[in-house]
Amino acid sequence: MEILVIPSVNEARMDDLANKTVIVIDVLRATSTMLTALAHGCRAIIPVETVLQAKQLQQPGYLLGGERACKKIPGFDYGNSPFEYMDDKITGKHLIMTTTNGTRAIQKSLKASTIIAASLLNGKACAKEAAALRRDIVILCSGTQDIYSLEDGICAGQLIEELQDILLSTGGIEPEINDLGLSMLYAYRQVQGNMTQALLNCSNGKRLSKLGFTDDIIYCSRLNLIDLVPIIQDGKLIATPVNQFI
Amino acid sequence: MEILVIPSVNEARMDDLANKTVIVIDVLRATSTMLTALAHGCRAIIPVETVLQAKQLQQPGYLLGGERACKKIPGFDYGNSPFEYMDDKITGKHLIMTTTNGTRAIQKSLKASTIIAASLLNGKACAKEAAALRRDIVILCSGTQDIYSLEDGICAGQLIEELQDILLSTGGIEPEINDLGLSMLYAYRQVQGNMTQALLNCSNGKRLSKLGFTDDIIYCSRLNLIDLVPIIQDGKLIATPVNQFI
Repeated sequence: MEILVIPSVNEARMDDLANKTVIVIDVLRATSTMLTALAHGCRAIIPVETVLQAKQLQQPGYLLGGERACKKIPGFDYGNSPFEYMDDKITGKHLIMTTTNGTRAIQKSLKASTIIAASLLNGKACAKEAAALRRDIVILCSGTQDIYSLEDGICAGQLIEELQDILLSTGGIEPEINDLGLSMLYAYRQVQGNMTQALLNCSNGKRLSKLGFTDDIIYCSRLNLIDLVPIIQDGKLIATPVNQFI
Repeated sequence: MEILVIPSVNEARMDDLANKTVIVIDVLRATSTMLTALAHGCRAIIPVETVLQAKQLQQPGYLLGGERACKKIPGFDYGNSPFEYMDDKITGKHLIMTTTNGTRAIQKSLKASTIIAASLLNGKACAKEAAALRRDIVILCSGTQDIYSLEDGICAGQLIEELQDILLSTGGIEPEINDLGLSMLYAYRQVQGNMTQALLNCSNGKRLSKLGFTDDIIYCSRLNLIDLVPIIQDGKLIATPVNQFI
């Protein structure tokens, strides 16, 4: 089994992702926020690329969420802060969500066999799910404006650490990992005891701190807080309890 | 001061390197081998891209070195193994060298203010030199066939570790480091006590081991063995004793 880490969305070619398990990461903040919404009872998330698409798909009772340049879009119900989605009003509802990077990564993975949305908050659950599927895995870091982002790479390292353990213990499998993946694994091991500080020190961490979102960074840096796996089904992101598959 | 790490040659744009201190890395094996040749008295190394260029530039007394697909080029004096260059015959001689990746990286840096060739063997010396120049620094990992190579990234991490220490202690400077650079710094810290194993486990390490070059990997994984800084002057790589500049 191969595990390939891709550093940012623009370096992913759709054909390379075909028929594989693709794990999309956007730690700050899209995949962390989507997971939080699903954990608070959101029924399904429809990821879209543009604000116009979001408005066109809207139906009565659907909620709109997303950000541009880290800020809530005018007329939308929610921005991209996970704390906004810890909200009873979201329970049972559909959410249409547009984000700068995370959504593009999901769109680029549409030929994949399975698309999973991962963050530090559910890395272990996602690794269990991906390992159980027994296909080659592509870990697609969203990055920011086509540039690699540290927090996504660290999450890739977390996934590889967990995947190695699970694959070895459940099937005696030692996956082939590309050099970027190995580097991320080492970086993750180095900072795992001090994850919040690592995220506060990276480019997006500094930017979000300046905009007043320090609490978001602290929350998004917590490891394995939520035992759910968001998976794309018919174009919608649905929460799957991890134990169903293993 | 900014420190930017670029993961492979094809991602470097010549204009981004203009007027900066560029540190080129090709740990396995071009920059390690060039350094070894200079440490054994080679007078100057002329890096070229093609075998034809190497032959056209040859003059009486000049030696030819280089590899294609890890093997010595027919008719050349030396391949790309550092052990070949630990040779009295090289003392005082010019060496024309063509390698697959390292040379391309040097060629791409020609608008730089200064071009330094680094490896794990002389990371500390190169960091001292680059810090003393007090310009923005680009660390250009050669990679392999346009793909990121772990050993170059780890060496970038070594350089950043040393640069941070020197800049802070000599000028109170805290450099701005891009997210890839921070990731490489963390990865370097994680593996620095076990560098040989890290290099044996990466893609180039596995490939070279299969070809019988395990000793090269072990040698190239040694930290700060040689206190020389190869710098490009008039298109030639010349050894500079590090203490001259600090």
